Amino acid sequence: MRYHSDEPDLDAFYGEIEQAHLQPLWEMTGLLTPTPAVKTVPYRWSAGELHKMAARAGQLVPIDGGGDRRVLAMSNPGLDGAPFVSGTLWAAVQYLQAGEVAPSHRHTPGALRFVLDGEGVYTLLDGDPVSMRTGDLVLTPSWVYHEHHNPTDRPMMWLDVLDLPVVAALDAVFFEEGPSEEADRSIAPRSTTERSFGQGSGLVPTGVSAPIHDRPHSPLMIYRWAESDAALDALLELHDGREAELRYRDPTRDRDVMPTMRCEMRRVVQGVTSATDRQTGSRVCAVFRGAGVARLGGNEFTVAAGDVFVVPSWCEHQLEAHTTVDIFTTSDAPVLEALGLFRRTVTA
Amino acid sequence: MRYHSDEPDLDAFYGEIEQAHLQPLWEMTGLLTPTPAVKTVPYRWSAGELHKMAARAGQLVPIDGGGDRRVLAMSNPGLDGAPFVSGTLWAAVQYLQAGEVAPSHRHTPGALRFVLDGEGVYTLLDGDPVSMRTGDLVLTPSWVYHEHHNPTDRPMMWLDVLDLPVVAALDAVFFEEGPSEEADRSIAPRSTTERSFGQGSGLVPTGVSAPIHDRPHSPLMIYRWAESDAALDALLELHDGREAELRYRDPTRDRDVMPTMRCEMRRVVQGVTSATDRQTGSRVCAVFRGAGVARLGGNEFTVAAGDVFVVPSWCEHQLEAHTTVDIFTTSDAPVLEALGLFRRTVTA
Amino acid sequence: MRYHSDEPDLDAFYGEIEQAHLQPLWEMTGLLTPTPAVKTVPYRWSAGELHKMAARAGQLVPIDGGGDRRVLAMSNPGLDGAPFVSGTLWAAVQYLQAGEVAPSHRHTPGALRFVLDGEGVYTLLDGDPVSMRTGDLVLTPSWVYHEHHNPTDRPMMWLDVLDLPVVAALDAVFFEEGPSEEADRSIAPRSTTERSFGQGSGLVPTGVSAPIHDRPHSPLMIYRWAESDAALDALLELHDGREAELRYRDPTRDRDVMPTMRCEMRRVVQGVTSATDRQTGSRVCAVFRGAGVARLGGNEFTVAAGDVFVVPSWCEHQLEAHTTVDIFTTSDAPVLEALGLFRRTVTA
Amino acid sequence: MRYHSDEPDLDAFYGEIEQAHLQPLWEMTGLLTPTPAVKTVPYRWSAGELHKMAARAGQLVPIDGGGDRRVLAMSNPGLDGAPFVSGTLWAAVQYLQAGEVAPSHRHTPGALRFVLDGEGVYTLLDGDPVSMRTGDLVLTPSWVYHEHHNPTDRPMMWLDVLDLPVVAALDAVFFEEGPSEEADRSIAPRSTTERSFGQGSGLVPTGVSAPIHDRPHSPLMIYRWAESDAALDALLELHDGREAELRYRDPTRDRDVMPTMRCEMRRVVQGVTSATDRQTGSRVCAVFRGAGVARLGGNEFTVAAGDVFVVPSWCEHQLEAHTTVDIFTTSDAPVLEALGLFRRTVTA
Repeated sequence: MRYHSDEPDLDAFYGEIEQAHLQPLWEMTGLLTPTPAVKTVPYRWSAGELHKMAARAGQLVPIDGGGDRRVLAMSNPGLDGAPFVSGTLWAAVQYLQAGEVAPSHRHTPGALRFVLDGEGVYTLLDGDPVSMRTGDLVLTPSWVYHEHHNPTDRPMMWLDVLDLPVVAALDAVFFEEGPSEEADRSIAPRSTTERSFGQGSGLVPTGVSAPIHDRPHSPLMIYRWAESDAALDALLELHDGREAELRYRDPTRDRDVMPTMRCEMRRVVQGVTSATDRQTGSRVCAVFRGAGVARLGGNEFTVAAGDVFVVPSWCEHQLEAHTTVDIFTTSDAPVLEALGLFRRTVTA
Repeated sequence: MRYHSDEPDLDAFYGEIEQAHLQPLWEMTGLLTPTPAVKTVPYRWSAGELHKMAARAGQLVPIDGGGDRRVLAMSNPGLDGAPFVSGTLWAAVQYLQAGEVAPSHRHTPGALRFVLDGEGVYTLLDGDPVSMRTGDLVLTPSWVYHEHHNPTDRPMMWLDVLDLPVVAALDAVFFEEGPSEEADRSIAPRSTTERSFGQGSGLVPTGVSAPIHDRPHSPLMIYRWAESDAALDALLELHDGREAELRYRDPTRDRDVMPTMRCEMRRVVQGVTSATDRQTGSRVCAVFRGAGVARLGGNEFTVAAGDVFVVPSWCEHQLEAHTTVDIFTTSDAPVLEALGLFRRTVTA
Repeated sequence: MRYHSDEPDLDAFYGEIEQAHLQPLWEMTGLLTPTPAVKTVPYRWSAGELHKMAARAGQLVPIDGGGDRRVLAMSNPGLDGAPFVSGTLWAAVQYLQAGEVAPSHRHTPGALRFVLDGEGVYTLLDGDPVSMRTGDLVLTPSWVYHEHHNPTDRPMMWLDVLDLPVVAALDAVFFEEGPSEEADRSIAPRSTTERSFGQGSGLVPTGVSAPIHDRPHSPLMIYRWAESDAALDALLELHDGREAELRYRDPTRDRDVMPTMRCEMRRVVQGVTSATDRQTGSRVCAVFRGAGVARLGGNEFTVAAGDVFVVPSWCEHQLEAHTTVDIFTTSDAPVLEALGLFRRTVTA
Repeated sequence: MRYHSDEPDLDAFYGEIEQAHLQPLWEMTGLLTPTPAVKTVPYRWSAGELHKMAARAGQLVPIDGGGDRRVLAMSNPGLDGAPFVSGTLWAAVQYLQAGEVAPSHRHTPGALRFVLDGEGVYTLLDGDPVSMRTGDLVLTPSWVYHEHHNPTDRPMMWLDVLDLPVVAALDAVFFEEGPSEEADRSIAPRSTTERSFGQGSGLVPTGVSAPIHDRPHSPLMIYRWAESDAALDALLELHDGREAELRYRDPTRDRDVMPTMRCEMRRVVQGVTSATDRQTGSRVCAVFRGAGVARLGGNEFTVAAGDVFVVPSWCEHQLEAHTTVDIFTTSDAPVLEALGLFRRTVTA
């Protein structure tokens, strides 16, 4: 980049350093700002539009039309046309027609699926078939082979969130097609992952094998809604009955489900207006149940079941529950914490 | 201690060093042995005798007869009359009559209760009432106030295991009576500990308070049998159907339930003879269900539901299941692991 | 972003989803590539040019001309004019005239200074004056106040490396001016940081205060060349005498000096051609002593003392030492490791 | 153990339970005490006596007289003749004549050597020859082969401290003779351990091999007095000039040198009376330089260079420095910390 100056000597110097691939710090602006200079803007995608567009894509686009996934990515209006919901997260709806298979592949970006509504699709995780039902969280962590197949006679849609912008910014994207041979798509009542690690809080098989344990993500890769729902009820009983929040975690270690993404489910009871918080890093919020208002910085969005909204880094965030709302949130908080960059304030 | 020698000079020297409180290493034997020189011997206490003696104590001894606990400690025949089941563990049966209260106290030795049979007693953990039922594991970790009360009209007995010999050997026993004011003994359907941390594998309240998290033990202090039972079934499905074992762990961290004691439940299916293992540190095993034979070193014990047996350090241990057996085991393995002293071998 | 199709229905659909801020994954290319699609290119800045340009800036630009730092940032030719040496790192030369002061500030991006040649400047770290001499590594970690002052009568130049691109990508840049009152710029023979933590391997003050220990970086913030030099010699003695490498680390914990940057010093003996390695994440290499050739992907650069070169992510990297070379390297490896994304291959 | 009662029924019951290897908690005393019931008593062994007795043993006892070590163990007067300096630690003086070799062996109890005065002996650690000089701390951790050889023409004595009572209480003592073939006893100027890990605070070889790193102790096994001395001086400068203390630690991890023993060196300046502290676990203190008074509980001992004293668990401890004193201390604190049992109070 060529800098310019009204002083002829300096201008000539700027020409020289441009040739030398050097740039003058003292001419740069916006580099070290008092608080983050965030391009991601607050925004909400409505359930209606997401459903309509996904269904229309289901009609127009075959599953093998490219990338082997029928996915509509939310593109944050502040990010100059990039297909990212925020500077660090990818969010999308994925749509699978009756009988379709999204074939196996794996990639270093980690992903998760949250089912806003519907059931019947199985995701195979390194060959382990996990059924997906309303309210379930399914992990497809970094470098785990995954495919989705829909043995039912109805289409199904769900929310995808990936850490793709972070992995791309680190020049660390790797991708591989899955094995070409036909997978065993017989349907098991319970996956291996949940039989091993999902049978009760604090109950873990003795002598867990190192290959599982050494991977940088939770060995439990499916979190069922029935348990999340009951846990939120139990927490509400304990506290003031206004709101409760649980975090999905690795049940065998002191860490989030994946090193790049934090998952939480929050219940705000009808009539409650939450405290205002803000934190570094961005958040993607999916309204699972209920309706209300999300105040994001100076903006106000009505939100209802199936809507997805994004909270940019360091943006004030407040919820007003018109009916009791359950909100599933994914954030990049583990990244910011690992790098010593996490800050959070809460004001009543 | 005065050493002696046939050589007059040396004998005189031994007299001098005895005065100086010094001892000659070269005269000592049994100090650095090729393998552990273990005084604890394999032994089994039968369910019938434990029940009979506990019930008899219930008739003869009031709850406030000393120590405020009606407890019969298993005394290992190898330990010269010490009231310890092994060199590192205390095991006992505790018996509470209908309507009785074992009042509140706390101590640095950690304890656990396993209910071999019965229900109805509540243990208060720092005031949190936890119901005890058949097959449940209840923790009363180091320095947590605990009391037991029996609001039913039947007596109840359970197994106590403590790390008392270890804490005593470290000269670190502290003890305090609980607050004298009457505790709130109203009975809650679920304890705070299980509502907070026992609602589902990997589901943890967001923003867990530091006071809970900084304590050196699991924040979940009750593990229900229904979940353990289902988890063992699920593990059996996954493997060869011969046996399965689960470990009770802190659901929020990569550690055992307490820093001094490991808890495990093992199911060996009818007809199976397990591999032979041995490990440093001792184990207390309680037969929860079923019957079979335990081979311990050169000894063989028939074992059945309600029996308790002890496996000394580095003693060979093998199970033969005549019916499907469930065995609850407590060991000092976390201590040996923390100090770099854990060794284990398994031979088919 | 508006996608287009030759099929009218699909093209109309693309218009609709563009309005809805959605984008079709199946039309995207270059998103999930088999190996990283890296824009950063291998490049070398020569010592001569860096010195000449920095000195010229010293003549033309006052220290308070903007940002209070006289800094020339290396701009990678592949990054479209961004002032970054790679996608994740900032590298620059900083130049301070005799008597000048670069005033105090702090920021969340972490920085380090490596002195390729020269001495006399003091960096104050939260008020602790650290002298800078040839071969020293000085840390100015995230959110530590720092200023530089040159009490000598000669200018001094050094290398700056920052994690700024990473922190900016995470929308987590914060910045504050330092306190306006005059700092105590009296010169101490040794800094507090090195008196506390730099007095010998494994020697740490008992009862280190939590404020120091809880910060996410090394409490030792100056690594002296004399020790690095001796350590490399000692390592060469131990091994095959061909090459040795040491890592600068937090002397109190199992971690790098900062959560975002790894620092290493490598010595390759005259005549040796190193193995070829490649790793995810980028590296900035400064030749401290000696001369040779750096092969980076298909490129070959002659390198000599004072040169700086950049190794992009997953780019093959090999050194040929014409004289014994010492190379100081900073990488983003701790970031990739924390996120489970670090990969490295070495081929002889 | 047979308990007795004046009530005939109860007495009969006590007879029955004795047969059943059960004991009544309510009859036991001294089990759960308000504070630790410590048998170890404060005591001091004088330098003069230690030297005299060791030299006399050198005359009377050959090195191969038993255990292949000429060692006089300090026997705490409170421990009923056990050869232990406290309930958890072994302390002894070891004496090697000119030209003697104490042959190679290894054992699970960990050991350390502190040289109160003298030089010339080499300890081989898994074959790595480490010279021992005045003020040095040499580790011989659990299961590391070690031998001592004295190639000089003078005898040498040093202090041994072991965790033997703890390892024995855990029934985890293993012992092996070293390889019978002649070791290479050529003398290296610097050991491999110090060339790899002792070359400067925070400087660690890149790519440290897992075999070294996975062992549960510091990879640095020699801490030289020159560095400790300088570190104490540097700390004194920083603080009030009254006293300073440093801890010997694993330079690559956040832990003590061994999992069972903490090592510290404290300097109290002439005329200073220290604060009074007490802590759980016991301490062995060796006066390296200077003279003063040690107040231990109600006892007072004059102490001077070469003296060794023991501080029992939870015993008050205060130092009065008549001249500036340097005191080397080993404690079992890592054990108590690992098990959640460490308590410490300090009162001015």
